Amino acid sequence: MQNYFSSHFKLGVLGGGQLGRMLLSETQKLDIHTVILDKSADAPCAQICNEFYQGDLLDFDTVYNFGKKVDLLTIEIENVNIDALDKLESEGLTIYPKPSNLRIIQNKAQQKKFYKEKQIPTADFNHYAFVDELKHSYENGLVTFPFVWKSARFGYDGNGVKVVKNYNDLEALPEGECIAEKMIPFKNELAVIVARNPKGDLVTYPVVEMEFHPEANQVEYVICPARIDETVAEKARKVALKVADAFDFVGLLAVEMFQTQDDEILVNEVAPRTHNSGHYSIEASYTSQFEQHLRSILDFPLGNTDSKLAGIMVNLVGAEGYTGEVIYENIQEIMNIDGVTPHLYGKKITKPFRKMGHVTIVNQNIDKAREVAQKVKETVKVISK
Amino acid sequence: MQNYFSSHFKLGVLGGGQLGRMLLSETQKLDIHTVILDKSADAPCAQICNEFYQGDLLDFDTVYNFGKKVDLLTIEIENVNIDALDKLESEGLTIYPKPSNLRIIQNKAQQKKFYKEKQIPTADFNHYAFVDELKHSYENGLVTFPFVWKSARFGYDGNGVKVVKNYNDLEALPEGECIAEKMIPFKNELAVIVARNPKGDLVTYPVVEMEFHPEANQVEYVICPARIDETVAEKARKVALKVADAFDFVGLLAVEMFQTQDDEILVNEVAPRTHNSGHYSIEASYTSQFEQHLRSILDFPLGNTDSKLAGIMVNLVGAEGYTGEVIYENIQEIMNIDGVTPHLYGKKITKPFRKMGHVTIVNQNIDKAREVAQKVKETVKVISK
Repeated sequence: MQNYFSSHFKLGVLGGGQLGRMLLSETQKLDIHTVILDKSADAPCAQICNEFYQGDLLDFDTVYNFGKKVDLLTIEIENVNIDALDKLESEGLTIYPKPSNLRIIQNKAQQKKFYKEKQIPTADFNHYAFVDELKHSYENGLVTFPFVWKSARFGYDGNGVKVVKNYNDLEALPEGECIAEKMIPFKNELAVIVARNPKGDLVTYPVVEMEFHPEANQVEYVICPARIDETVAEKARKVALKVADAFDFVGLLAVEMFQTQDDEILVNEVAPRTHNSGHYSIEASYTSQFEQHLRSILDFPLGNTDSKLAGIMVNLVGAEGYTGEVIYENIQEIMNIDGVTPHLYGKKITKPFRKMGHVTIVNQNIDKAREVAQKVKETVKVISK
Repeated sequence: MQNYFSSHFKLGVLGGGQLGRMLLSETQKLDIHTVILDKSADAPCAQICNEFYQGDLLDFDTVYNFGKKVDLLTIEIENVNIDALDKLESEGLTIYPKPSNLRIIQNKAQQKKFYKEKQIPTADFNHYAFVDELKHSYENGLVTFPFVWKSARFGYDGNGVKVVKNYNDLEALPEGECIAEKMIPFKNELAVIVARNPKGDLVTYPVVEMEFHPEANQVEYVICPARIDETVAEKARKVALKVADAFDFVGLLAVEMFQTQDDEILVNEVAPRTHNSGHYSIEASYTSQFEQHLRSILDFPLGNTDSKLAGIMVNLVGAEGYTGEVIYENIQEIMNIDGVTPHLYGKKITKPFRKMGHVTIVNQNIDKAREVAQKVKETVKVISK
């Protein structure tokens, strides 16, 4: 059997941001030698992984050559050169999640088509190769305001997603392949993280509930467990499992969903990796999502996804009006509250809405946790000198 | 106010072993730049801290020059050159725990004298500059078999501690300053970790109960909370607080104690740092001992020391008969049990009884946790190729 611990085995990770950084705390725990590629020499993982390489994740040669240095390859960001992964896989390298999955997930139009094909519930949409096509479609009465525009490629954290309310909004859209999606009036945004290992073991984390910042379209609070009916939660978990099955997925899959006004579950999108909606698990769960990711890609037994306590996560994003060397204001004040754990991602420069860290709040009582989360949100500020 | 996070502030740590490694997972969480000195280029911290220096912790110049590179200095091992720390402190460097405390704790004879002076309950003892003095003392009937011999300096994990039962044992003792301590027939070995910050805030962790390996004199199980009467636990916490107060201590102080047959508490010895008896806290406590150490030395508010769940720690030590490149046998089997978290320390070479890692078991029910701990102990083996 492969010996992963304190051995010559090398785990490669494409991307060295905060997700990689939190993964490192697990590879360190198990002493798994970890090699990371990131475009920035200042990436959050750069100083603290076993080996670090600087390079473009979208460049074929860079990704291919990096893959040749490692024994198993995974990702912490899905925007990577898939052609290089295909070639590495064809040459025998184990890559989880599978490149074929990443290719579909990387492109939001392909992702949506996949859901339709696999009869996974999702909002209706139209697919356009160019924004001009979308404009024609509007002029011919095939789409109506308001609708949700999504760039097919490389959107994240609300970049590449816009609610188009009128012709001015339509005119302002950037060029490129996109989809126009029916607006779904929803009660809740939910997410379920599924983990699956190569031998097919499958577990789901509890359903979490997300509250978004109204402007930045970034998650402000992730609440676990979601404060929803058990029947809805059960439906959400089933949909998430169906998505993981449809992909024949290996690794961690975060499935974001809408709970509609009539309690239907529609898949919004997935992330083929550890996810913001699972950060609460570091303090609240028996098995953190980062440990679970390792377990799944290394074909270990999957860990218990139950929670020790209720958990809420607050994102720390750069305050508007501040760009420069970061200062985290009032961290000590929130550390004075029971059950509060800040995580700072090691980014030296803040800018408006940049994800700079998060804070987890755990408590026996979820309402108490929610109060503390509000307090935390109001107290900490990410500014610059 | 000093800005510690994602800043130019440098935390120096003397020692880069497993305690430093687990501390790093907290400095990474808060993005505190950490600089480490260790004698071994292969030290568990070497690859994963922000800056690493190789050098002798007992050498004046090495420690002094290292201290000049950092803004605040702490330790993960107490056997360091105190003269260098005194000079650094006199030149204005903040050092926690204080060098004056370390000087007393480093020498077991001084430590015992300190307890006597401060009226802290401890077993009776005699102090000898040489083993020959001890032999004379025996020959003159001033000590009787059996007694406990302890080397005054640089003992750890049972090295430097022997039960002397007869003249042969006495003859076999190594040279050097030592104490002869009265044998205490005890019900339990207990430990309490106290954290104190410079402004004087003070917290104690729950009392833990330790079971030792009969031969190696290393802790096999640490059980939190100790399965003892609340009145005894309260007495143990009070004694631990008294010790911390007597030292006017800053940082984490692990106080090891005996519960005697008549439920008295006697201090055995202290460690001025994070401690094996607090490893359970990573998974079981609201605030891990490593985060608490940071909070205490940085003068932050101290964290909640309550437990989320019952916790038991099993040490993973090198099996007898194996020396060489380490293999951790059956880690995957124990990862199949709920609430089990292995920590491997990143040491590439195992040898008999070397501390190579630990496993934490958490459970709502302490008896169930104890069963799992036994299973873990029987399943995992630390061997070599």
